[in-house]
This record gives sequence, structure tokens and C-alpha cells, in this order.
Amino acid sequence: MTMPEADESVGTVYLVGSGPGDPELMTVKARRLLDEADVVLHDKLPGPKILGEIPEDKREDVGKRAGGEWTPQEYTNRRLVELAREGNTVVRLKGGDPFVFGRGGEEMEHLAANDVPFEVVPGITSAIAGAGVAGIPVTHRDHVSSVSFVTGHEDPTKDESAIDWQALADTGGTLVVLMGVGKLPLYTQVLLDAGVDPETPVALVERATWPNMRVASGTMETIADVRDKHAIEPPAITVIGEVAATRDAVVNFLGNRTGELADHDGLETTSE
Amino acid sequence: MTMPEADESVGTVYLVGSGPGDPELMTVKARRLLDEADVVLHDKLPGPKILGEIPEDKREDVGKRAGGEWTPQEYTNRRLVELAREGNTVVRLKGGDPFVFGRGGEEMEHLAANDVPFEVVPGITSAIAGAGVAGIPVTHRDHVSSVSFVTGHEDPTKDESAIDWQALADTGGTLVVLMGVGKLPLYTQVLLDAGVDPETPVALVERATWPNMRVASGTMETIADVRDKHAIEPPAITVIGEVAATRDAVVNFLGNRTGELADHDGLETTSE
Repeated sequence: MTMPEADESVGTVYLVGSGPGDPELMTVKARRLLDEADVVLHDKLPGPKILGEIPEDKREDVGKRAGGEWTPQEYTNRRLVELAREGNTVVRLKGGDPFVFGRGGEEMEHLAANDVPFEVVPGITSAIAGAGVAGIPVTHRDHVSSVSFVTGHEDPTKDESAIDWQALADTGGTLVVLMGVGKLPLYTQVLLDAGVDPETPVALVERATWPNMRVASGTMETIADVRDKHAIEPPAITVIGEVAATRDAVVNFLGNRTGELADHDGLETTSE
Repeated sequence: MTMPEADESVGTVYLVGSGPGDPELMTVKARRLLDEADVVLHDKLPGPKILGEIPEDKREDVGKRAGGEWTPQEYTNRRLVELAREGNTVVRLKGGDPFVFGRGGEEMEHLAANDVPFEVVPGITSAIAGAGVAGIPVTHRDHVSSVSFVTGHEDPTKDESAIDWQALADTGGTLVVLMGVGKLPLYTQVLLDAGVDPETPVALVERATWPNMRVASGTMETIADVRDKHAIEPPAITVIGEVAATRDAVVNFLGNRTGELADHDGLETTSE
């Protein structure tokens, strides 16, 4: 295997996961690269604490623009190449892990197609960490041998849905839905129709590891009402499976809960 | 919700994920807690680089013991409680994330049942990072909308297998098998029988992010032979799905490859 000729005038792009939002849950490497970068391209997903620590003069927001429009992915791809060709060390900062529903794959392919050297710096996905800090292990020797992650932002009742909810239900493993607050009633119904037990525990973890994190619990049958009662909003993960009930047994000894928490029956919210 | 009375003579136990093995892929928090801990309970999974940075006089190995036996989980559980009650700040260091096939759930429940305060510090799982640093996004907008993680250390042909490989095959998403080097021929056959396309790309990532990391690629049909030819050994992850082929298009521009790499047809190994 031969290496391409290194063009030393072209900077490197680092595709960096910022983790779930707590700055201390960034990797040592992400922390270092943010310090070393000439430019940091980001959206809002890394969260206010992490973005607040990056000097404004090296931040470029490629998320929501004035007027509420999203920057097209093509613009971000082009901008990464442009900045690297100008000789910049570029950090493309993404919430969670760059490759867990983060479109990092497309950016990586675009960089390679344009001969721009890059490096992947994994981050902690909120799908695992959000559950964990809430006292919910996504796998458990006594309960489950698999865990699946899926996006909840497409309509599961559409014929062209790319997600096979029946198969996901049939795995019997833990299911974590990302970006699934809005369509929660739709996919819980699809999963119930697919044979998931209505009593299966479900937890919603809103703004996992952010200072104002909240957790609300229920079952497959009640969780949509729990969401409404507590006005749970994005970003949040939905954890479906027996493991979601583990929280009840441990929450009083769990040091890293922050913000408000719904109590174990999911119908009361208490402040700490 | 009332907090239990804090017993200030009891130390806190931190259930800490060390990430995939590169010390720079530890979180800032894990790094800090390793410095602050009185005792670090660990096995071999965090890898030699990370363990080598912890002073010997605060390390306690609860992994493989002399004679090749494993320390029973009950011993580890008991030892965590004992050390905390002696007033120690304890780090229970686990490879990857504590709750991804790490038995952290059991340890957490045991601590809560014994009134020992604890905190969960997520880490990066090799299931995501191992793929990522090899140039494989576990999800991709063009290919897959879900990713599932499963353990490969149980025999998939046994009737009592807790894993529904048929359902996992039916999801159509990426499948990442952890601890699945030994039984690779068994579960690839089970997946082929379940209807997975024999041409589906598969990658093995051995010792992900360690200095001597290796990647070997093939298809569902060839990967068992690829494993044998390259003598791939644990720890390694198996990445099954269209995304595994992404590596071919990007590997020449990927900065963080380390060690030997199998070339894209998976049958030759070259040194760099």
C-alpha cells in the first residue's frame, strides 16, 4: 500500500466527537485538538458548556442559520476542504460520536475524495452515556445480550421507513432511540404492535450530562403521557428495555444526577 | 425524593470507562479521577498503555489471576464495598464503557444495595471507536439507520443462545460483535443462514486504538479465512454491514491508522 504524496500546504481535518455535553466527558485528545485548531466548525449539538469554552474567533457555526434554515451538508463539506487547503488545522466538532447518526461518514468520504488528510477522534455517544449517568446500563448480564441504536426522526408508519421496527422488537435487546422525542407516540405504538410487552420499562433522558439534565420514566404504555406531563424536549434519548428499571434500585446512591428528576413512577418531578 | 443520609466515612466508587485503549481517548474526567483515586481496581481490558500510567501502588488487578483463573465477580463486588467503607476514593476502571458488556450494571446494583455512593463515568466503547478509527462509520445516511452491538462469546448454535441472530440479521443495520474472534465462523454461518448476503463487507479491528492495532477486511463468506490468515486475536471487534466497505475509499487519507493493516481485499498484510 503506497501513501499518497503529502501536500504539506494542506491542513488536516479532525472529525471530533465532543461527547454528550459535559466538558469533562470530552476526550483528552478532543480537548487538546480544540486548543490547537485554527478553526472549529460546529453546530449546536455539542451543547452550550463545550461551545462556550471555545474562543469565538475560531468558531464557525454550520448549524442552524438566521431564519431557522439549516446549512446544507454540501456547504459544510465544501468549507472543510476549503479551510484545509488554506493550510488550517480544522476541527469538525460533532455532538456525541461523529459516526453515530452524525453524518461524519459523508464528511470523511468527501475529504478523502478531495485528497484532504483527516483523522477520526471518537467521542462518547449520548445513547450510551445518557443511559449510564441516569443509572441505566444498556446491557446487563441478567437481562439482555444486545443493544440497538436507531434514529427516531423518521415517521415509523410510513411505508418507506428505512427502519425495521419489527426486527428491532424481535431482538429482545435494549433499544435506544436518538432524536426520538417528537415521534415517541408513533414508534412506541409500532413497537407495541410488533409484540413488545406494554409493561416494558422506558426512560427518557433529556440533555444527558448537561447541567439541566432530566430523566422521566414510565412504561411502553405510559411513556408518551409522561413525556407530555414533564414537557420533555430534544435533545433526549429514549431507552426501552428491562434495564431501564435498574435506575429505580440505584438512583438514591447515584452521585452524578443533575437537574430535576422525575421520580420512579414517572408522574412526579422533584427538585433537588 | 429524599436523599439517604450521607455517611462521610464511606468513600465514593467511580465506575469509570477507560475507552478503547489509547490514553488520549480517555475522558478528561477519567484522567482526573485516576489521579485522585486512592485505589484503582482493574482487569487487563483497559490495555497496557493506560494501565502503565497508573502508579503500581494504587493498582489492584481483579482480572486474571495466577494460574489463569478469573477473579469471581462476587469478589470484585465485595472488594469495592470494603474499600469504600475503609474511606477510600475508589476507581473501578473498565475497558470501553462500563455498561457495554462490562458487568458494570451488576457492580452498580451491588454498591447501591450496600449503601455505597457511586458515580458512573462513561467511556468510549471500542464497538464504535474501533470501527471509526479504521475509517468505518457505524451508521451512514446512505446505507443504514440502525446499529446493534452484541457479544460473540456464546455459542450461537446452542438452543439456549440468548441472542436472536435472525432478528439482528433482519434489522438490516450495522452489526458490531464484541469479543467475537473465537466464534466468528459460527455466527457468520448463523447470519448467512438467516439470510444475510454473503457479499456483505466485514472488517475485523484488532486492539483498536492500541499502538499495534490491525484491521483485516473481507466479506461474510471470506472473513473466517481472513481471520486465520492474519491470525487475528482478541481483543477485536467484528463490523458487519455495507459501512465496512467505506474504509476502502478513505484509508489512504486516514491519519490515525497504526500498526499493520490488511489491504482492502483482506488477503495481504502490509507494513507501513
